[in-house]
Amino acid sequence: MKLIRYGEPGREEPGIILDDGRRLDVGGQFTDYDEGFFALGGMEALQAWVEDGCPDAEEIPPEVRLGPPVDRPSKIVCVGKNYLDHAKEFGEGIPTEPVLFMKASTCWSGPYDDVVNPPGAHKLDYEVELALVIGKTASHVPEEHALDYVAGYSVFCDYSERAFQKEMGGQWMKGKSCDTFGPMGPWLVPASAVPDPQGLRLWCKVNGELRQNGWTGDMMFGLRHLVSYISRFMTLLPGDVIATGTPAGVGMGMKPPRYLAPGDCVELGIEGLGEMRQRVVASH
Amino acid sequence: MKLIRYGEPGREEPGIILDDGRRLDVGGQFTDYDEGFFALGGMEALQAWVEDGCPDAEEIPPEVRLGPPVDRPSKIVCVGKNYLDHAKEFGEGIPTEPVLFMKASTCWSGPYDDVVNPPGAHKLDYEVELALVIGKTASHVPEEHALDYVAGYSVFCDYSERAFQKEMGGQWMKGKSCDTFGPMGPWLVPASAVPDPQGLRLWCKVNGELRQNGWTGDMMFGLRHLVSYISRFMTLLPGDVIATGTPAGVGMGMKPPRYLAPGDCVELGIEGLGEMRQRVVASH
Repeated sequence: MKLIRYGEPGREEPGIILDDGRRLDVGGQFTDYDEGFFALGGMEALQAWVEDGCPDAEEIPPEVRLGPPVDRPSKIVCVGKNYLDHAKEFGEGIPTEPVLFMKASTCWSGPYDDVVNPPGAHKLDYEVELALVIGKTASHVPEEHALDYVAGYSVFCDYSERAFQKEMGGQWMKGKSCDTFGPMGPWLVPASAVPDPQGLRLWCKVNGELRQNGWTGDMMFGLRHLVSYISRFMTLLPGDVIATGTPAGVGMGMKPPRYLAPGDCVELGIEGLGEMRQRVVASH
Repeated sequence: MKLIRYGEPGREEPGIILDDGRRLDVGGQFTDYDEGFFALGGMEALQAWVEDGCPDAEEIPPEVRLGPPVDRPSKIVCVGKNYLDHAKEFGEGIPTEPVLFMKASTCWSGPYDDVVNPPGAHKLDYEVELALVIGKTASHVPEEHALDYVAGYSVFCDYSERAFQKEMGGQWMKGKSCDTFGPMGPWLVPASAVPDPQGLRLWCKVNGELRQNGWTGDMMFGLRHLVSYISRFMTLLPGDVIATGTPAGVGMGMKPPRYLAPGDCVELGIEGLGEMRQRVVASH
């Protein structure tokens, strides 16, 4: 079972994909996949409903848009420079503890939605990342229990405008928060179906050319540590998203740098979690 | 008319304070002061209802807790080093354009709630700030219209743990996002009742001693510029909060630094917008 949301942006309905590939609407049985859904045991109830044979379910039309697989979260916490090879290409030193920043949640976007090159942007870049979705409120969680707080995993692209991020004074979030800079999907895979989230290939292609080709086992700070560490500095709510960093191969790290331009096609995937595809378009 | 919210944390009801001082519940007439309220013209409807004599209103009990005057926002965008004298005491240069960062919205807190010194913290600091609440969706807003997007003003304290912020690698948000680090209140004053938001005194006292004593006219980047500038990098949603920076006098800027400790009492106010008071308590 995988969780999806479908329909027009901002009006998505919850659905699932069964192991046999059928896509079912669950909007009649469950609320949207949001803070309340996860907080009130929605994942377990959904699993039980599937085991019960999905009574009263209707199939989702094949042509419909997929949105991000969970509702806009209360926060998107990102980990910077969490793969050694990327930390080297990024520069400014190797972290000795996790580097954290946030993206504005208004960047939230669907797995096949266009990514918009914002006005004045000329250094748009991609970062494929393993994302996790928090399943229950987490505050000062010990490492050994940290993964109990994870509802599921998904593919995330931390789109970044490097001039906004690094050349306009102060903190990174200016280059991280534009609309469409946070696509997630194509679905949410329940944590119970991902026995080793630290053993997955992840990749990103631009116009068919393989640019990033990493392994989640290469994170400097692993998932248990990240959830525990972040929960020391803020309370993570059900439905919150943690993007766990990107491996080497971003456009900024090339000599000379190779940024994205309107018309480019970005494809990103993680082993067992599916693949997204975004087209870069100019703002209008 | 001023907007308040009252009741237990997370279960606040909307209310108002009339010009004659009466406090009325409006939960029977209006939704909570959240994204939907502002987006759907709630401020105008509330004003019309008051002009209509507040039909069917009940008074709010005197002893009830006040919460933050708007619901937890989708984002809290903060401006760093926006007063020259504070930029100098903070160090690391004078900004040439606004420095932006975010606080996790889980820091959201009421005007008289305790501020919790988090585990491991030893450099807790205060920052009184003028906060504005966005009234309608703002993206790429020109400066000349920027204040049309402001629903109202309030007092905000950007509590900061300086070791978390500056000594733990990377970005500031680690020291900005702990629970209770974002009290706002005691009420929201509609923008129409604040003819010159750039001409207000703001101050902060610790245990009765005046530590910060500034003037909003001293901002290096004024409110029009800030709303316009921020809206270039992200879409501001109704109910979002912008904290516009703090004047000199924070604990970190003193020689030697003087940080907050459990038992301390912090009082902060802005001319015409009211005064908040938080007690520092240890985490348990």
